[in-house]
Amino acid sequence: MNQVDFKSWMQVHLARVEAALSEWVDEAAPAGLGQAMRYAVLDGGKRLRPLLVHATAEAVGATADSMAALRAACALELIHAYSLVHDDMPCMDNDVLRRGKPTVHVQFGQAQALLAGDALQALAFELLTPSDDGVPVAVQARCVGLLARASGYHGMAGGQAIDLASVGQSLSEAQLRQMHHLKTGALLLCGVQMGAACGPDVSAAALTALTRFGEVLGLAFQVVDDILDVTADSATLGKTAGKDAAADKPTYVALMGLAAAQRLADQLAQDAMQALTDTGLSAQRLAPLRALADMVVQRTH
Amino acid sequence: MNQVDFKSWMQVHLARVEAALSEWVDEAAPAGLGQAMRYAVLDGGKRLRPLLVHATAEAVGATADSMAALRAACALELIHAYSLVHDDMPCMDNDVLRRGKPTVHVQFGQAQALLAGDALQALAFELLTPSDDGVPVAVQARCVGLLARASGYHGMAGGQAIDLASVGQSLSEAQLRQMHHLKTGALLLCGVQMGAACGPDVSAAALTALTRFGEVLGLAFQVVDDILDVTADSATLGKTAGKDAAADKPTYVALMGLAAAQRLADQLAQDAMQALTDTGLSAQRLAPLRALADMVVQRTH
Repeated sequence: MNQVDFKSWMQVHLARVEAALSEWVDEAAPAGLGQAMRYAVLDGGKRLRPLLVHATAEAVGATADSMAALRAACALELIHAYSLVHDDMPCMDNDVLRRGKPTVHVQFGQAQALLAGDALQALAFELLTPSDDGVPVAVQARCVGLLARASGYHGMAGGQAIDLASVGQSLSEAQLRQMHHLKTGALLLCGVQMGAACGPDVSAAALTALTRFGEVLGLAFQVVDDILDVTADSATLGKTAGKDAAADKPTYVALMGLAAAQRLADQLAQDAMQALTDTGLSAQRLAPLRALADMVVQRTH
Repeated sequence: MNQVDFKSWMQVHLARVEAALSEWVDEAAPAGLGQAMRYAVLDGGKRLRPLLVHATAEAVGATADSMAALRAACALELIHAYSLVHDDMPCMDNDVLRRGKPTVHVQFGQAQALLAGDALQALAFELLTPSDDGVPVAVQARCVGLLARASGYHGMAGGQAIDLASVGQSLSEAQLRQMHHLKTGALLLCGVQMGAACGPDVSAAALTALTRFGEVLGLAFQVVDDILDVTADSATLGKTAGKDAAADKPTYVALMGLAAAQRLADQLAQDAMQALTDTGLSAQRLAPLRALADMVVQRTH
């Protein structure tokens, strides 16, 4: 898949995801809650996680217009969005800038931000369990189980708890890896696993290789994130640059230095590509997923 | 069902719910998160919502040891517990006492309280979607859909947003009813609906009557809550008494006076019993549900 084809693949899926999110995150929610939820979700995300769901679903044979994949893609993005809203709150990271805009609690107040995050999490699970648009109940239940586990104490929330406890602590690389594996990696892996659950024909071998791909990609994502925190500026990132270093948070760059972190990112990128080859799926079906993984590692924000 | 039989029915189910919650809310969650979650959930709740799920499930023919009902019961309690944790936080109600103990944010800090609430919500949906203990995937998907909707912006979170916006405002009885219908009633109704989803044989007529029962019970619960806020003391309630009045929150007592609120509670109790009769289900099967509804209206805390 050349760069032009991938851009066109992305545009189609991004448009569909944006339209679905705008429809499903309903302004009609009472007392300003709908506005806060929409503010947190619409106009601004890179939508990496939804694209990962779609690319994986297509890799295992789902059609480009799979409703199961679209719902899983949007549900995952809602979980990601809620985690950012809560993470930015004063009692957590106390951040005022996100995606180039004031954070939700700055714009709507802390109480509304807390509620908007809670309601976005609930909406994610609501999206996964439609009563009327043909997603098989087995796929619904499987995606809910994957997403709940990945976002809860076995996953993202657990990683955030470790992160909270680790500020100012010196972590080993293994501990740092474990924290990020939960905090960031679990949701990315979940995107791959939900995508795979949306397709008709996944062998056990392909699923194992896809799982390894998802794990390696999650780690690569975090290493690149740590690198960007020190090499990019706030305007490019759309969030406060240098904040991890300022908060004395453990990062790969702090642990191993910038050059070694960049070498690690390159190695992980190669590992991810190898895992895709190991799935045994057709090169054509894998093309969007391969291009997406490449984008994650090459990104500048 | 006489009082002795009901007490014995309750004891059996309470013991099972407590044991399941203690097993499923796992202390092994990292960096103190597990302790905060367990503190929020174990030892202290009346478990009204889990009992409502079990009583409804048995009314429609589920066995007393239904795993589907146990999972739905515990999931509902986790959603209730997370909502209390977040509600008590300084940016919301800023309460320091709950079930006779310091609130979660007082005990563990605000950041951990926020995460514990988030992780409890995720765990609720994880409990509903087991891969291995025989709950049909259709029941899993149905319960997730009901619980997600009831706890999100169509339900509890929406009601909380109205509540936030209504402090110091004068609401009509219709507006107050709508707020409580969402904030408190939606989860109680959901308990009835999930219970009904766990049983084998529910006619459309029975489901309609059960839904009406759940709605009326939710309203009765709130009216009694408002009455207790002014008539009981903190030691009996296990939480700060008089706080709604002190915060100038709209309540049924503030709106209509204490005597009229008590008459309304009595009327709603009668309506609830009538709705149960209208289900057409056998009196024997309905007995625990009838006794439970009676307890809700007669409670002193």
